[in-house]
Amino acid sequence: MSNAYDKAHELGRILKESDEFKQLAELHSKVNEDAQAKQMLEGFRAIQMELQQKQMQGMDLTEEELQKAQSVFELVQQHELIGKLMEAEQRMSQLIGDINRIIAEPLEELYGIGE
Amino acid sequence: MSNAYDKAHELGRILKESDEFKQLAELHSKVNEDAQAKQMLEGFRAIQMELQQKQMQGMDLTEEELQKAQSVFELVQQHELIGKLMEAEQRMSQLIGDINRIIAEPLEELYGIGE
Ligand SMILES: [Ca+2]
Ligand SMILES: [Ca+2]
Repeated sequence: MSNAYDKAHELGRILKESDEFKQLAELHSKVNEDAQAKQMLEGFRAIQMELQQKQMQGMDLTEEELQKAQSVFELVQQHELIGKLMEAEQRMSQLIGDINRIIAEPLEELYGIGE
Repeated sequence: MSNAYDKAHELGRILKESDEFKQLAELHSKVNEDAQAKQMLEGFRAIQMELQQKQMQGMDLTEEELQKAQSVFELVQQHELIGKLMEAEQRMSQLIGDINRIIAEPLEELYGIGE
């Protein structure tokens, strides 16, 4: 299977050289160099992670928690740099998702038919 | 990004032509053609899915459920064809996991450094 691994490394390199990745990396650096933006984003991510963990443990979120998450999300999106970073993350995540679906197509065919 | 999509399709084709995939597909067919094996495996998968859903909903599994899952698992693994199929699935899943990690390496570098 060295062939598949080689091809995966080629694909990794193409992704790294893509405009999508370069934009993401640039925005990531800019946010990290901007103390206010960095702090805002870290605060948002901490809340997001806390609520995700609650949900994964099967706990319901309170009305108050949902409202807090929503207002923090609206706040961070209004920050131009963070908003752009989140859009770039969204595009990259879409691209990786597409790629994973393409690679796994033979398996989907196998498990989709005759079972 | 047509380049990344092209490369992903190439990788999908390599996987489909791999020994790992061919073995998996062959064992899958054999199990589907063997009524007893098919029923045994479907029974096992149904129990597995039921327990996974309970866990995802944050519910604890009872001692009885864990014992039942364990004994059904031991039973299906003793079936030669099913045991081989599960090993082939394990190898394919390892391969896909490796490939996903290789592809996502640039992203890991980005999020692992400077944050
Ligand atoms: Ca996010
Ligand atoms: Ca399995």
